[in-house]
Amino acid sequence: MSTLVQPILLSESEIAELRKEVGRDTLMGKAIAKNIKDVEAFMKLPLEVPGHGEAGGYEHNRHKQNYQYMNLAARLFLITGEDRYGKFVRDLLALYAELYLTFGFHVQKNTNPTGRLFHQILNEHVWLMFTSIAYSCVASSMTEEERQNVIDRLFQPMLDMFVEKYGHDFDRIHNHGIWAVAAVGTCGLAINRPEYLEKSVFGLANNGTGGFLAQISQLFAPSGYYIEGPYYHRYAIRPLCLFAEILHRHRPELDIFNYKDGVIGTTVKALLATAYPNGEFPALNDASRTMGITDIGVQVAVSQYASHYGVDENLLGMAKIQDSVWMHQCGLELSRAYEKASDVGLPFWPSVELNEGPNGDRGAQGFMRVQDKNKDVFQLVMNYGQHGMGHGNFDTLGISYFNRGDEVLREYGFGRWVNVEPKFGGRYLDENKTYARQTIAHNLVTIDETCQNYFDVERADSVHGLPHFFETQSENLVGMSAFANGHFDGFGQQRSVFMFKHDELEAPLLIDLFRLTGEGEHQYDYSHQYEGQIVRTNFEYQAHAELNTLSDELGYRHLWNVAEGEAKDTALVSWLQNNTYYTWLGTSSNDNGKVIFTRSGANDPSFNLRSVPSFILRSKGESTLFASVLETHGYFNEEFEQSVNARGLVQSIEVIGHNAQGSVVSFATDKTRFTLMVSNNPEASKDSTHSVEVAGKTYTWAGYFAVEQETL
Amino acid sequence: MSTLVQPILLSESEIAELRKEVGRDTLMGKAIAKNIKDVEAFMKLPLEVPGHGEAGGYEHNRHKQNYQYMNLAARLFLITGEDRYGKFVRDLLALYAELYLTFGFHVQKNTNPTGRLFHQILNEHVWLMFTSIAYSCVASSMTEEERQNVIDRLFQPMLDMFVEKYGHDFDRIHNHGIWAVAAVGTCGLAINRPEYLEKSVFGLANNGTGGFLAQISQLFAPSGYYIEGPYYHRYAIRPLCLFAEILHRHRPELDIFNYKDGVIGTTVKALLATAYPNGEFPALNDASRTMGITDIGVQVAVSQYASHYGVDENLLGMAKIQDSVWMHQCGLELSRAYEKASDVGLPFWPSVELNEGPNGDRGAQGFMRVQDKNKDVFQLVMNYGQHGMGHGNFDTLGISYFNRGDEVLREYGFGRWVNVEPKFGGRYLDENKTYARQTIAHNLVTIDETCQNYFDVERADSVHGLPHFFETQSENLVGMSAFANGHFDGFGQQRSVFMFKHDELEAPLLIDLFRLTGEGEHQYDYSHQYEGQIVRTNFEYQAHAELNTLSDELGYRHLWNVAEGEAKDTALVSWLQNNTYYTWLGTSSNDNGKVIFTRSGANDPSFNLRSVPSFILRSKGESTLFASVLETHGYFNEEFEQSVNARGLVQSIEVIGHNAQGSVVSFATDKTRFTLMVSNNPEASKDSTHSVEVAGKTYTWAGYFAVEQETL
Repeated sequence: MSTLVQPILLSESEIAELRKEVGRDTLMGKAIAKNIKDVEAFMKLPLEVPGHGEAGGYEHNRHKQNYQYMNLAARLFLITGEDRYGKFVRDLLALYAELYLTFGFHVQKNTNPTGRLFHQILNEHVWLMFTSIAYSCVASSMTEEERQNVIDRLFQPMLDMFVEKYGHDFDRIHNHGIWAVAAVGTCGLAINRPEYLEKSVFGLANNGTGGFLAQISQLFAPSGYYIEGPYYHRYAIRPLCLFAEILHRHRPELDIFNYKDGVIGTTVKALLATAYPNGEFPALNDASRTMGITDIGVQVAVSQYASHYGVDENLLGMAKIQDSVWMHQCGLELSRAYEKASDVGLPFWPSVELNEGPNGDRGAQGFMRVQDKNKDVFQLVMNYGQHGMGHGNFDTLGISYFNRGDEVLREYGFGRWVNVEPKFGGRYLDENKTYARQTIAHNLVTIDETCQNYFDVERADSVHGLPHFFETQSENLVGMSAFANGHFDGFGQQRSVFMFKHDELEAPLLIDLFRLTGEGEHQYDYSHQYEGQIVRTNFEYQAHAELNTLSDELGYRHLWNVAEGEAKDTALVSWLQNNTYYTWLGTSSNDNGKVIFTRSGANDPSFNLRSVPSFILRSKGESTLFASVLETHGYFNEEFEQSVNARGLVQSIEVIGHNAQGSVVSFATDKTRFTLMVSNNPEASKDSTHSVEVAGKTYTWAGYFAVEQETL
Repeated sequence: MSTLVQPILLSESEIAELRKEVGRDTLMGKAIAKNIKDVEAFMKLPLEVPGHGEAGGYEHNRHKQNYQYMNLAARLFLITGEDRYGKFVRDLLALYAELYLTFGFHVQKNTNPTGRLFHQILNEHVWLMFTSIAYSCVASSMTEEERQNVIDRLFQPMLDMFVEKYGHDFDRIHNHGIWAVAAVGTCGLAINRPEYLEKSVFGLANNGTGGFLAQISQLFAPSGYYIEGPYYHRYAIRPLCLFAEILHRHRPELDIFNYKDGVIGTTVKALLATAYPNGEFPALNDASRTMGITDIGVQVAVSQYASHYGVDENLLGMAKIQDSVWMHQCGLELSRAYEKASDVGLPFWPSVELNEGPNGDRGAQGFMRVQDKNKDVFQLVMNYGQHGMGHGNFDTLGISYFNRGDEVLREYGFGRWVNVEPKFGGRYLDENKTYARQTIAHNLVTIDETCQNYFDVERADSVHGLPHFFETQSENLVGMSAFANGHFDGFGQQRSVFMFKHDELEAPLLIDLFRLTGEGEHQYDYSHQYEGQIVRTNFEYQAHAELNTLSDELGYRHLWNVAEGEAKDTALVSWLQNNTYYTWLGTSSNDNGKVIFTRSGANDPSFNLRSVPSFILRSKGESTLFASVLETHGYFNEEFEQSVNARGLVQSIEVIGHNAQGSVVSFATDKTRFTLMVSNNPEASKDSTHSVEVAGKTYTWAGYFAVEQETL
């Protein structure tokens, strides 16, 4: 069989258009320039194909760099026409062909099958995917003999490994599975073995249970959300987009971008819609705190979305944050649109509730956004969906909150130092289970010092959040509410969170009503992870002269009890984070509140944890309602010695009452008292009228919630 | 007497030239645009002249904003020719004139005399200085009656207060004193009362003991260094530069820029030469960690230096960091030079030793810089000068170290939240004395858990560091050394620090030899404040199950003892800060080392301290030599999941011996053993030959130090 010699992702005319961007001050011009700089630096090193090494170690990284730079150099060979880029790829391919079969398989260390280059075949899939694309770009400059050598001694053995030796894994529906099918299909196309492309698209058995079409049909909820959260989603999005582009070009009859109502566009957009205003992804579900839309996979996704589904202001805003585009025809289209646009601002995605589960009926993730007077975007995220697979966090009804350029109510993120070899090979650390995934490490309520679903994954998989409302129509008050019943034995939980704008306040208030219903006396710990410096409180507290852990329970044993104090009515905790003051006022319907200040790092024998502060409002009793507001105010700049509005305006918050029908709370500034009424009835609809009698008074309102105000 | 009506800092032709920059994309154009934006925003607020308030509170800030925006608006009135800027200044002046005398004097709360607007007259001096300049810009657009009203009811009463009521303070030589004389002189000139200018220049008694000329003659060391360090220096530099410019224009016969061999240029350059490569000032001596050359006073200084002493690459580099210039003729000259220059890089100031004391014989501050292969600047700072006046730190021989964009061996900075009213009115906190100024809070050695000079300011003022050598000629090995004898009763101390470049290493090594000589058995704590995450050690340590303070002593009582372990030979502590790995290897000539990991925050009842980690190498014995290297290596990027060279190359360090003549230490990679020999003889010179017998071997070298290497 003769080998094909054409680039599988770029046509001659596209290459000619890309060439015109070299040296230009456009997003594409900058992308090309940066890639040239990076590739040139790498090409200065001697070629090297190392043997086995540790995950995250030198050899691992070198193989990774090899495919990354082959992938870039091969396209630069086409775009610049300079042969030395092609030679680099040809020589490195020849070296891999010479050595690949001399490497045995790695020794297996965990459940992942091992490759010849990497300790898990996932990385070998990635290697094959990019190397195949690179090969297709330079194949025309190779002799038939050179091509056949690479095919026989490198690509074909890899294909055999993936489809035969590890064939049992090939059809598994999983984010890793997308890499497997995309790699095999891409390589099959590059070496003109269409049967591999068939297997990749339709699965080994060709019965709809495996392959790319099955993956994209089953991996995402109807909303496009991926169960493991944005961090893992962005990892799958790159092969998904690349392989879709390949199918678009080589199997046009599949009409891949319209497949299943445009599932590819839907899932890309769902991923983008989770991002914070600065482009970082919320660290939902056992994830890194630093992953964002500048990730190269997301760059590919944004460029491709722009090309196939259309450009809009928010995509341009994302390209602005990325300050780059995919070095491809799709990226060129985005770059040109960006060039034409004037005055591109930062993105302001609309609020969106992304449903979960194959049928969209296993809860949802809520992403709510409002802007303040200065156009700063406030984003509130609540998890009321599914457990995030095997390594999911136990934090249903957890929230995180972002404004003024940083996360305020914070996710700890995973207990892992990715690729840092001396930190357990860069793998998940024990503390990931014993701290980061525990309920107390999140911004929600822990009952009796245990953990949601008692850290039982199977139990967690059997329940999910129940959406109550997600209302974003009002200019001044938006809110979402959900139930999580059955996550603790014998308990119902409901959380209703709002962002509220009012002329008296410089920024939206976050209002939080967390209701717990159960039998008997229990301990409820309402906790927030924050960052920065405590500025003031309105209660006396004792800083401990020696520090002990909060308790011996999982999660709790990693927290130092730094200080604590009684706070019977409204408890006020104010802190300074970066340039902004935050004042939190909280209370519960029990009258025995205590605030505990903690810091993570206890029982951490290898300094695996970060040292992060939190505060906990602890209340004991039967059913309870926690009510709190978080005010964002003022400005501090140490360098310029500026400090304004260091004290917030909200003075108090009070629970008036709550029952199965509704909750009524009030909070007040010096000038105005606000009363917020919220539906607790899961049967209620947008049109329901509620009438709730609490504290001897009847409160009536239409819809899920209402706010009334009274001048003081 | 008729009033003058001309701007005192700008001529008609200069104004015309500045006008040409409006709307241009130059540093000056950007400065004007930013000032317009800021002033416009402020002018939207109603005019307000509030009564008394707290330091750092609303009223305080409003008065401060009022003079800041009058100062800018008045110049914009001239530059843009738009009268509404002038009107804003005239109206606000009239309002101050109406109200000023109705305000009584503030109630005195500390040793500073109080003003009518501010709680200390320092702020009122500043107010007068800028308001006088603003007045001079708009006076020509006022009626004679309006002018006289402002003079009679505002300026003259202020002058009376400063020169009569508080006349006893007017001639005091102090950084605050520069504001006093500059304000009075500037106002005198603006209202055509030359007698005030005379008093300001020559002092009330006109006998050389006060006034601007005395201040600039006596306030700085011959090197230009200011005793309180760069943070306080930059505060004095603004009135100094402004008033010098005024004298240059109105009293040319003083030839102010050449006065005393150009002391103004010398002290500006000394200030700039302290800055870290990113433009931030090291937090020497009880200072903020965030003050830098972007401070507006330093912008004035850089522009003025460029205008009167000449532009060079480093000044252009500083303008690049500032991304702005002083909105004045001086700034215009710098802006034009910047416009002409191509490819301005970041500054790389030469290493400099700045002597201290009126005669330059009271020690020095050493600022040493080298670049690595990637042109990144490594800066090492050592304090071997004087005690920094009343609020000085007790840290002679302390070091700080900067590379890869951040401080690595860190200064804690002051215990103060500037202008944060709920934090003790923004004033110095108790913890400033009990922690931040104590020896243990710095990067040096604490003996027997006490503090240098036993926290006695008078005692501290009686001693100072003794420079030994400061050698920067060699390309590969630069070093400085100094003694601090008498800072602890009965002890001699010598610290010798080096930066060492070698082909095997990607970055310069920091080498530190800290020698202590005394009688009897003592405890020595060699400590480093770092930031980031501990990655690995080469010794076993125990993380404590409960945390206690390090001891009850001052300084120590604020540190939690987090973990500790025995480390008899070379102790290795490696951490990750931002994107870089650091590995420290340390030992002492005693063989009983123990490493303690600490975190600040104990005995901190109001959360006034930041939570900062440190590690301490503790050794007990008689005289001892601590020897350590700090290797900078590798790269980590969580977002891009990159980690390279997480382990450093240096494997060990060993003290071979030390005596009164010299110290000999060796350290080694896998390939090479290096032997470093250092002079301990205060009588030695550059040309001395040393011969030291230690461990049965004689080591001989020429000059202050030498390194030999041996392939392993």
